[in-house]
Amino acid sequence: MSKTNGRMILNLMLHNAGSHRGAWRHASTKVEEIHDIKHFQRLAQKAEAARIDSLFLADGLSVEVKAVQHGPIFGFEPLTLLSAIAAVTENIGLIATMSTSFNEPYNVARLFASLDHISGGRAGWNMVTTGVQRTAHNFGMEQLPSHSHRYARAQEFADVVLKLWDSWEEDALVQDKVSGIYANANKVHDIHHQGTYFTVRGALNIMRPPQGRPILVQAGASDEGKNLAARYAELIFTVQHTIEEARLFYQDVKARTAKEGRSPGSIKILPGLHVIVGATEAEAREKASELSELGSIERSVMSLSNLLGIDFSVYGLDDPFPELPESTQVNAYQTFYQMVLNIVQREQLTLREFLTKHWIGNGQLCIAGTAEQIADVMEEWYTTGAADGFSVMPQLSFGGVEDFLDLVVPELQRRGLFPESYTGRTLRENLGL
Amino acid sequence: MSKTNGRMILNLMLHNAGSHRGAWRHASTKVEEIHDIKHFQRLAQKAEAARIDSLFLADGLSVEVKAVQHGPIFGFEPLTLLSAIAAVTENIGLIATMSTSFNEPYNVARLFASLDHISGGRAGWNMVTTGVQRTAHNFGMEQLPSHSHRYARAQEFADVVLKLWDSWEEDALVQDKVSGIYANANKVHDIHHQGTYFTVRGALNIMRPPQGRPILVQAGASDEGKNLAARYAELIFTVQHTIEEARLFYQDVKARTAKEGRSPGSIKILPGLHVIVGATEAEAREKASELSELGSIERSVMSLSNLLGIDFSVYGLDDPFPELPESTQVNAYQTFYQMVLNIVQREQLTLREFLTKHWIGNGQLCIAGTAEQIADVMEEWYTTGAADGFSVMPQLSFGGVEDFLDLVVPELQRRGLFPESYTGRTLRENLGL
Repeated sequence: MSKTNGRMILNLMLHNAGSHRGAWRHASTKVEEIHDIKHFQRLAQKAEAARIDSLFLADGLSVEVKAVQHGPIFGFEPLTLLSAIAAVTENIGLIATMSTSFNEPYNVARLFASLDHISGGRAGWNMVTTGVQRTAHNFGMEQLPSHSHRYARAQEFADVVLKLWDSWEEDALVQDKVSGIYANANKVHDIHHQGTYFTVRGALNIMRPPQGRPILVQAGASDEGKNLAARYAELIFTVQHTIEEARLFYQDVKARTAKEGRSPGSIKILPGLHVIVGATEAEAREKASELSELGSIERSVMSLSNLLGIDFSVYGLDDPFPELPESTQVNAYQTFYQMVLNIVQREQLTLREFLTKHWIGNGQLCIAGTAEQIADVMEEWYTTGAADGFSVMPQLSFGGVEDFLDLVVPELQRRGLFPESYTGRTLRENLGL
Repeated sequence: MSKTNGRMILNLMLHNAGSHRGAWRHASTKVEEIHDIKHFQRLAQKAEAARIDSLFLADGLSVEVKAVQHGPIFGFEPLTLLSAIAAVTENIGLIATMSTSFNEPYNVARLFASLDHISGGRAGWNMVTTGVQRTAHNFGMEQLPSHSHRYARAQEFADVVLKLWDSWEEDALVQDKVSGIYANANKVHDIHHQGTYFTVRGALNIMRPPQGRPILVQAGASDEGKNLAARYAELIFTVQHTIEEARLFYQDVKARTAKEGRSPGSIKILPGLHVIVGATEAEAREKASELSELGSIERSVMSLSNLLGIDFSVYGLDDPFPELPESTQVNAYQTFYQMVLNIVQREQLTLREFLTKHWIGNGQLCIAGTAEQIADVMEEWYTTGAADGFSVMPQLSFGGVEDFLDLVVPELQRRGLFPESYTGRTLRENLGL
């Protein structure tokens, strides 16, 4: 499948200490800066200097109290954090996760339109559904709605948000001091949406965003998730364990996108990629081994339990990996369920072995190596139909982000796989969308 | 009543073109910058250089399409805008309006905690109820809930938000790399709130805000509004037409605050104050007269209709001001209803006369004059128990904000009414709360 613009897309996921759960304990991490806005602003500025396409913030709407002892929670709310980053950057894209399960579309459309205006057209929305049972309890629900209900709501939610962004035509502003006409009221439209989940009558109370529509991102890999992506998304963040699985996913999503009448090139697939870069392979392996000493196995059990909606703390760590229920009985994240199922069907593992071998990056592709070795893997995935780019997660934020930007990005640029400068005015233009 | 700290509080309300509806048409206004984030960042930096205590953003969650032709709508969502301002300022407080009627407390607690972390302890929340019928239609409701229902919800909403801010104890963070204990899970508490409007089980997913609790602001003047303020608020924004009415309101709120067991000094009352500053009185009057030529009377009718929940467009502009219904039949803003009622009972006016004479600043105190003249009025209100400070609304943003900061603030400082520098680390400390 041909590559639009002939270059990969690099999205950098921001973490406070790093994507590895033990990163906060590593010698390079300055714990006193983990929750400091300036730390995030510095990472953003460095990423922009390296011409990274976009920054990305994952999100959740709950915290498990017993988890806080094992490492930092993210903390900052993504839209406010990205607004503070927008103020100190000029070109880099700003993508925030916001749940369709526990928000109102009018508020969400407005927040992203506002970020798009604040940043001069650099906003993106990762429109997720929330699959964590505990979160429902923070929003007056005893039970999390079912997977299919959440996706039906997400689809209508996206529909309403798009209508709201479109409610102001591009040339609605007149600003004629002499006649006293500020805007053409015929070019601002109440949307009169009446659906299953939402009734929203009005126009948005902010002008059309600079990008027209902020970039839509989707991250679900269930059937419903892929269909939602095929219909609306422009970027896909995806969890892929092997290149073979990634290629199948890639082909599947591109085909579904074509079926929706959209060009397959209009949707860009970015698998998650955990990295540890070393000047030598030995140095990278040394860092990886330091980190694996620092991670908490209890915390890994909690993470697996949360993402699959199954309590794994009741199983022995050294017993064989417990049998998984049918997917229809799992009301959490199908993406992670499917990946874990694939792994445990392929390999005979104890729970502990599974966690230490495969769950460092929640099952995602994870490479420790030199810039050349990492670029080799990225090039292979990119040139053989497994990815349009990557959502990069350095396992260490302090030092590790710089290593990726200073060593891997220039290597990709030398190979002609990644551009040297921003050429567009907005994120949409820079992504070639 | 004695003044805490012996000095007034100055809060500056941010408008894009100015608080006057015709400001965008004034010669001094650069229309091309009205929706530019840099314009707001510049105003904020100038206000900070003048040692203004806080910036304030009003807000709404709907737009009336036919109103857009008459002037700019605000546009930016307050939390994102203030986060972008936080990034370019150091000391000034950042107060955003967010409705308790169309949001969830978990999301609101988190947004303000995040802004408080981003700004190093400068956030404030103006916890309003929404009284605009049209807004209900953007959130799936056919009818706006009743005034008393909205206030009962607001009270429980504030209660939940405070519990969430308190869910992390101050010293919960441990960050001990050696033992691997990041936070003390015994100092993070699920709140287990079960009330009439909300059920919220969990702890907040962001650490305790730097201020502990961001500053709480309230702006309603109904009985329910004043009781809500007496119970929770630390700053009151209030709409007062005359010094006599302002004194009665001041005494009433301080008394209610004492009845709640709080010190009357722990609540600061800031009436709204529209200003036009001139080097001479003649210059100020000239500007005021230019502005009154530029305002749209249709837009004033819409504003009056919205705030009172009564359609005034059906009445003749040159007929006597129509008879108002009983307050119990008005499901909008009691504050404005009561003020309008007071005015029209006192004076015999046509609708047009009312609008041009009293509705420039939605009925609020409005002074055009020299720095000395404006300082005289502020001093009188401040020293005679009508105000602890002011929420200042320059009628022109371009030039008019600077005039206030460059001319009026130094005059207040010369008189010993306003401090010369920030002395605290947080907004709470700077306000002496």
